Amino acid sequence: MDQMHQNPHDRLARLLASDMEQVDQVIRARMASENAPRIPEVTAHLVGAGGKRLRPLLTLAAARLCGYQGGFHVHLAATVEFIHTATLLHDDVVDESEQRRGRPTANLLWDNKSSVLVGDYLFARSFQLMVETGSLRVLDILANASATIAEGEVLQLTAARNLATDESVYLKVVRGKTAALFAAATEVGGVIANASPAVVAALAAYGDALGVSFQIADDLLDYEGNATQTGKNVGDDFREGKLTLPLIKAIAQADASERAFWQRVIESGDQKPGDLEQALEILARHGALQATRADALHWAGVARSALDALPDTDLRALLGELSDYVVARLV
Amino acid sequence: MDQMHQNPHDRLARLLASDMEQVDQVIRARMASENAPRIPEVTAHLVGAGGKRLRPLLTLAAARLCGYQGGFHVHLAATVEFIHTATLLHDDVVDESEQRRGRPTANLLWDNKSSVLVGDYLFARSFQLMVETGSLRVLDILANASATIAEGEVLQLTAARNLATDESVYLKVVRGKTAALFAAATEVGGVIANASPAVVAALAAYGDALGVSFQIADDLLDYEGNATQTGKNVGDDFREGKLTLPLIKAIAQADASERAFWQRVIESGDQKPGDLEQALEILARHGALQATRADALHWAGVARSALDALPDTDLRALLGELSDYVVARLV
Repeated sequence: MDQMHQNPHDRLARLLASDMEQVDQVIRARMASENAPRIPEVTAHLVGAGGKRLRPLLTLAAARLCGYQGGFHVHLAATVEFIHTATLLHDDVVDESEQRRGRPTANLLWDNKSSVLVGDYLFARSFQLMVETGSLRVLDILANASATIAEGEVLQLTAARNLATDESVYLKVVRGKTAALFAAATEVGGVIANASPAVVAALAAYGDALGVSFQIADDLLDYEGNATQTGKNVGDDFREGKLTLPLIKAIAQADASERAFWQRVIESGDQKPGDLEQALEILARHGALQATRADALHWAGVARSALDALPDTDLRALLGELSDYVVARLV
Repeated sequence: MDQMHQNPHDRLARLLASDMEQVDQVIRARMASENAPRIPEVTAHLVGAGGKRLRPLLTLAAARLCGYQGGFHVHLAATVEFIHTATLLHDDVVDESEQRRGRPTANLLWDNKSSVLVGDYLFARSFQLMVETGSLRVLDILANASATIAEGEVLQLTAARNLATDESVYLKVVRGKTAALFAAATEVGGVIANASPAVVAALAAYGDALGVSFQIADDLLDYEGNATQTGKNVGDDFREGKLTLPLIKAIAQADASERAFWQRVIESGDQKPGDLEQALEILARHGALQATRADALHWAGVARSALDALPDTDLRALLGELSDYVVARLV
C-alpha cells in the first residue's frame, strides 16, 4: 500500500477511479460485436491483459484539470485506448511478436488475419466514439494523430537495419509511434473542457514530451531492463535490427572495427551467440546508455516545464511527478 | 468508341471526368508522405493499377444528382477511394493473395508489414479528408461504415470452411465487406448536397443494393468467369474454402455423398486435382449458379427501384443502367 502511494501512476489511477470505471464500461460495451464474436475475444485478450491505461488516464486528467464537468472525456479516454489497442494488434503482426505484457500475442493465439481485422474494427469503433462528442476540433486532432502514428510506424519499418538512421529520424519515429497519441490524449482533454488556447497548447506540449521521454526510456530498458520487471526481454530490439537511441549514439562514435560489427549484426542481421554481450560492451564504452538516459531525463524536464502554464492543482502536481516516474523506472 | 458508349460505367466516368480529375489530384497529394517514401510507393502501385474508381464515381454522381455546387464532393470521393484502397491492402494480407487487378499484390512486392501499415495510413488520411468537410453527419456515416466493413471481414474470416454458413450470414458478410462502402459513398453525396431525408435514404438504399448485387456477381464470376476477362482466376474462393452464395446454395441441397465431398474439400481443405471440376458439376446439378445469378438480378432491380425517389435526370438514368450493367457482365 505504501508502495502504491509512492507511484504517481497508481495515485493518478486512484484519483480518477470513478471516471476510469466508466471508461471501462464504454470499452466493454463498444468492443462487443453481435455478428462477429471473434472481435471481443481478441480484444478482451489485450484489454484484460493488465495494460496500464496510461493514455486514457492522461485524457481524464487533462479534462479534470481544466474543470470539465460533462461526460465526453469518458468517450475520448475510451477512444484513445481503442486507438492504442488497435496499434498494438497491428504492431505485433508487423514485428512478428510472440509476447506482449508477459502473455502470448493475439497473432500467435489466433492468427495475423484476426489481428489485422480486429485492429481495423477497434480503429473504426474509436472513430465512432469521437464522432459522438460532436467536436470537430477533437476529430481533427485525432485524425492528424492517426496519420502521424501510421507514418511513424512506416518510417520505423524502412529505417530498420539502416545504419544511416540518425537521431532526427529516431525522433520522428518516436513522435509518430508514441508521442503523437500521448499529445492527442492530453490535448483533447483540454479541448473538450473548452480550455484556453494557451492551456490546450501546454497540455499538448506536456503529452508530446512525456511520450518522447516514455519511448526513450522504453528503448533503454530493451538494453538494460530485465524481463521480470518489465515483461520485455533484453535485446529484442537488437535482434530485430531496430535502430533505437542507444544504438544510434554508439554507431555515431564507432571506429572501423565497431562499424564492421554493426554492419554484420544490424545491417546484415547475421547474429551469433555473444553478439548482444559484445553490443552491450560497445554501448558501455561510448557511454551510450548514460547519454540515452540523459535524453530521457531532458524530455521529462520539458514535460514538467510545460505544466507551468496550467492551473496549480493537485492533479498538475501529480502529472509533474508522472513525468519523473516515467524515467525513474530506469534507475 | 462505340463500345464505350454502350458501357454505363465508362459513360459515367466521362460525364464526371472534370470532377474525377480533381479527385485524382487530391488522391495524389494526400497519398504523399514527407517522412516515409514507402507510403506513396505502395499506394501508387494500387491506385495506378487501373482500378475502376466505381465508388468515388458514385459519390460524385450522387452529389451532382442532388444539384451540389460546392467542392467537398471531391474530398468525399477521395475519402471513399482511400478507404477502399486501405481495405484492399489489408484484404490481400488476410487472403495471402498474390495477384490483384492482374498484377502482383503489394504484400508480395514489398511485405505484409508495409501493406498493414500503409493501409492504416490511408485510413487515417481518409479520416482527415472527411473532417475537412466539417460535416458531422458525413463523419457519422463513414465511421459507421468503417465499423461495418471491419465486422464483415472478421465474420467472413470466421465463416470460412464452416459448412453451416447460410444465406443470412452470407448477406451480413456482403453487406459488410462491400455494400457498406457503396451505401456510404452514395449517401454522403446526398448529405453534402443537403438533400432531403427521402432523397438521402433513397441514395443509401441504391448504394446498398448495388453493392450486394455487385458482390454476388463477383462471387459468381469466381466460378464461371475467365481470368482474361476478369483478372480473377476461376476457383480462387473454392481453394480458399470461402462460403460464397453458389456454394451455400449447393450445400443446402446436398445429398449424403455430396455432403461428404464438401466436408473434405471445404471443411477440411483437403483438395485434389479434379475437385474444382466436380464442384462445378454439383453446382450445375442443383442450378446453384443460375439461382445465384437470379439473386444478383433481384438486387439490381432493388437498386433500380430505389432511384424512383430521385430527380428524373440523365444521371439518374445512367445510375439505373449501371445497376443492370453490374450484373450484365455475367451474361
